[in-house]
Amino acid sequence: MAAKPKLAIVAGGGELPRLLIAACRAEARPFFVVALSGHADPDLVTAETPHMWARLGAGGAILKRLREEATGEVVLAGRVKRPSLLSLMPDAWTARFLLSLGRRALGDNALLSAIGAAIEREGGRLVGPETVLPDLLAPEGAIGRIAPGEADWVDIERGLVVARALGAVDVGQAVVVQQGIVLGVEAVEGTDALLRRCKELRRDGPGGVLVKTAKPGQERRIDLPTIGVRTVEMAAAAGLAGIAVEAGGALIVGSAAVADAADRAGLFAVGVARPPAAAGRP
Amino acid sequence: MAAKPKLAIVAGGGELPRLLIAACRAEARPFFVVALSGHADPDLVTAETPHMWARLGAGGAILKRLREEATGEVVLAGRVKRPSLLSLMPDAWTARFLLSLGRRALGDNALLSAIGAAIEREGGRLVGPETVLPDLLAPEGAIGRIAPGEADWVDIERGLVVARALGAVDVGQAVVVQQGIVLGVEAVEGTDALLRRCKELRRDGPGGVLVKTAKPGQERRIDLPTIGVRTVEMAAAAGLAGIAVEAGGALIVGSAAVADAADRAGLFAVGVARPPAAAGRP
Repeated sequence: MAAKPKLAIVAGGGELPRLLIAACRAEARPFFVVALSGHADPDLVTAETPHMWARLGAGGAILKRLREEATGEVVLAGRVKRPSLLSLMPDAWTARFLLSLGRRALGDNALLSAIGAAIEREGGRLVGPETVLPDLLAPEGAIGRIAPGEADWVDIERGLVVARALGAVDVGQAVVVQQGIVLGVEAVEGTDALLRRCKELRRDGPGGVLVKTAKPGQERRIDLPTIGVRTVEMAAAAGLAGIAVEAGGALIVGSAAVADAADRAGLFAVGVARPPAAAGRP
Repeated sequence: MAAKPKLAIVAGGGELPRLLIAACRAEARPFFVVALSGHADPDLVTAETPHMWARLGAGGAILKRLREEATGEVVLAGRVKRPSLLSLMPDAWTARFLLSLGRRALGDNALLSAIGAAIEREGGRLVGPETVLPDLLAPEGAIGRIAPGEADWVDIERGLVVARALGAVDVGQAVVVQQGIVLGVEAVEGTDALLRRCKELRRDGPGGVLVKTAKPGQERRIDLPTIGVRTVEMAAAAGLAGIAVEAGGALIVGSAAVADAADRAGLFAVGVARPPAAAGRP
């Protein structure tokens, strides 16, 4: 088997970049980390980690360095808060890139697809993080020991319909549903903030499910919806009964730990193949 | 001209029920108020106001009283926080009504349409509040002296696309967009909470618009999206540049006061005819 090419890890926040670095180290795969300042964890890299820190707006400097490092594959991983054009302070390359996008930059899908294309032109083949960590992709069926009940499935189906409708206009990837009532819908605030809010919005009585799906037609190598132990803990704190993600269309960061956390908190976590036809409104 | 029939005002929270009572008094039109406890302002009715207080779950008692009062028309007005089935404590009539809905009760549209049909069978003709207060319906064009700029129109168009997609799956009526970024999407939390949240989510730089539209196919006599002076003040506090509503598909409670408040705060408020064809994704 040929050695794997050098991997560029463009790193935002959260645990995923750390897992990717660990995976490269474990198999002695060469790698280079682009830690995005203001997004990546300050402890992500040490003096021993081949890395650079870079602003999100420094697209030109990042791609120049990736060419120098001769990275053959590039993975984008971790949370990045989408900045305004003003706070981005684009370098010359990034400014040209944004100008070339024009109005298409309005939605995340178009932006991410364009970023992917630019990377492939200049920095190496773009790959999804699941090519490095195969067990990242959500499987179908229960993750952990608890399964959704009948009323939970009604909420899951409703959540899938709403999440897909949102995804079709390139907004959010998460919704919270309880007893058929959509308690909250995610936009730029992120899933953590959505769950904090839904704790207050929850109705009396049982149930409540967080549903996360990929957007139809999204650049699936970048920005698949992600859950981890923290998501389970926050869903429990919000009083929810469980979490549903799209099987093969969401990442589970640390699936054994997620299963343990769900069992401990008494929540279900489940991978769902696709929304049932009956719920197939837009 | 024939005298107008006696009007039943089923009242939730906010200013609108008060305006309807004042309008009936001004034209000496007979009326009867059903004040929904926990929703309507406690000061809405006094001993001189023909009224009853009723729980939302007391559908049977409400309709019985409307028959006794011989109300010819019924208007539903004001904010009602959607309860869980558990907290609703339905009376026998309401329980039968909910059972007859079954799974259709999941979305607001189906629920509201069914409520409308039940009222028409038993309590009088259902009418929209704009039949009592004709200047409630949002007109096309600027409300107040400030007009949206070019970048605002881009955000308005994006907001209309997202709001309609949400409406198509029977969720929310409001979104906030800035520089093409959807900052927030309304579910059950209501527009006030959405605006409070978006104050924190706002990006550096100019702009930001609250967009409210009716849901496609919604029961338009009930629950049209509504703005008032408070909406303008909260949008200003959130740092937004303005508010856009669907002309003929949203209510402006106190349009002269709303125009004044917008001028004072330096915001635009505008009625928009329909989303442009170019933005007509789902």
